Amino acid sequence: MTEPQDAIDSATARSERDPRIDERTAGEIQEGIPFIGAGPGDPGLLTVTGKELVEAADLVVHAGSLVNSELLSEFCADAEQVSSIGKDLEELVPLMRDAYEDGRTVVRLHSGDPAIYGAALEQMDALEHEEVPTYLVPGVTSAFAASATLRTQLTLNGVANHVAFTRPQGKTLDIEEDHINEFVEMGDVTTCIYLGTHAVGETMDRLLDEGHDPETPVTAVYHASWPDEDIVEGTIATIGEKLEDAGYRASAMVVIGDAARKAGYERSYLYGDWANREQSEADD
Amino acid sequence: MTEPQDAIDSATARSERDPRIDERTAGEIQEGIPFIGAGPGDPGLLTVTGKELVEAADLVVHAGSLVNSELLSEFCADAEQVSSIGKDLEELVPLMRDAYEDGRTVVRLHSGDPAIYGAALEQMDALEHEEVPTYLVPGVTSAFAASATLRTQLTLNGVANHVAFTRPQGKTLDIEEDHINEFVEMGDVTTCIYLGTHAVGETMDRLLDEGHDPETPVTAVYHASWPDEDIVEGTIATIGEKLEDAGYRASAMVVIGDAARKAGYERSYLYGDWANREQSEADD
Repeated sequence: MTEPQDAIDSATARSERDPRIDERTAGEIQEGIPFIGAGPGDPGLLTVTGKELVEAADLVVHAGSLVNSELLSEFCADAEQVSSIGKDLEELVPLMRDAYEDGRTVVRLHSGDPAIYGAALEQMDALEHEEVPTYLVPGVTSAFAASATLRTQLTLNGVANHVAFTRPQGKTLDIEEDHINEFVEMGDVTTCIYLGTHAVGETMDRLLDEGHDPETPVTAVYHASWPDEDIVEGTIATIGEKLEDAGYRASAMVVIGDAARKAGYERSYLYGDWANREQSEADD
Repeated sequence: MTEPQDAIDSATARSERDPRIDERTAGEIQEGIPFIGAGPGDPGLLTVTGKELVEAADLVVHAGSLVNSELLSEFCADAEQVSSIGKDLEELVPLMRDAYEDGRTVVRLHSGDPAIYGAALEQMDALEHEEVPTYLVPGVTSAFAASATLRTQLTLNGVANHVAFTRPQGKTLDIEEDHINEFVEMGDVTTCIYLGTHAVGETMDRLLDEGHDPETPVTAVYHASWPDEDIVEGTIATIGEKLEDAGYRASAMVVIGDAARKAGYERSYLYGDWANREQSEADD
């Protein structure tokens, strides 16, 4: 087996596009190991195709505690289940390859959607290099579950015109690559912080240092769509302490901006000019 | 019936949080009319809960040609189907209210996820004002389908650390609220342009005027996950003309950045230190 970075380099150095990109559509069941977005947690928020694939699997490699165990017990109780937590590529890739070559049906379950902070691609490239075909099945990301729980939208006319999915500086992100300040600065962006629950205090302190309004609303949804889902509302000034008091050090979606409170949005122009016409009916 | 903007204002003026926010989790089936994310198009990319609700419906109000008719024929062929296209709130709200009050099972299907450019909330607030309960069921957004089709991730180590969902200036967005230039400027943001197929040429011209590299890759996925899905690859300099030649004036997800080509990404640290260790095996 060659080095995975070599597999990545040779995969990305190909000047020609993978023919499957043109031949297959998103959502289509293909030959090989599917890398499936498990959704935010609730088993009902897995896609229909994802459920079908998980139900048919002999071996399910999943993201450990990031995937709700209810989903596993509901859809693949009889399959072999392996958590990827604590396993590196050297262990995971041969495990999936060998099972696939033995004719077993293998699926890989990532939390949320694999396109967002998923680390699916390095496994896929390593497997493809071993001549095991792979493909992606998209899923619902936790920010959408958080938004549904809050009974709002992440874009909201007159409040938020754009959405950023971001993470704070840390082990895998250099200081100059941390754009949270810039997203908040724009004023009409709903900023959704992934992988940052442990660092909310520091993140908010930096926003205060940059001069942002301490009263800017920040809403954290812990374990969106899980049975123990919880909501912590605060501001740039208060959310760090509130999350600490609540004891959440991981698994919260932290949303900066007014959209999470759906404050003062305006009607869109999608459905005519209702807001501006004269009142013609009054039944209450 | 009162004016919808009044309904919105009274809804958002409430200082107390809707108790359902705390009592219900995302994905949970609730009393009332669900506002369901239909996903990007492929019926298999609807969620399990979404499918269940659509299958049980007597009346399905859907987003017309934005929702794949295959999904409707597969999951609710026997239900009454009404397209919302061309109908304003004055027509849609009484239609849904009356059906609900008559004891019929009503669902509202939005394309993608309702949190992203969905205009669901104004309908929900108007219905709530009429004492019809509503709730949201999240879905898969088209950017995730596009990413799956392209066999990539929207975040990719060393290439793209953040993702922006955005739309270009136009009838509903002022010039100063158009942040595409700023997102591209950051260098490590995958910029996903919604609702902008018709304006790609102008959008790219503005990026050229701002001095962005004309060779920056731009990838458009038309109708991601639909049977007629198509991919148009270009650059800031070429994508406008290429999309025009292909004849696409709507329904393309336009992705600016290297992630859509998965060029040169680095292994994450999630799965150990494989890329940096000495080579211990070589089988090809």
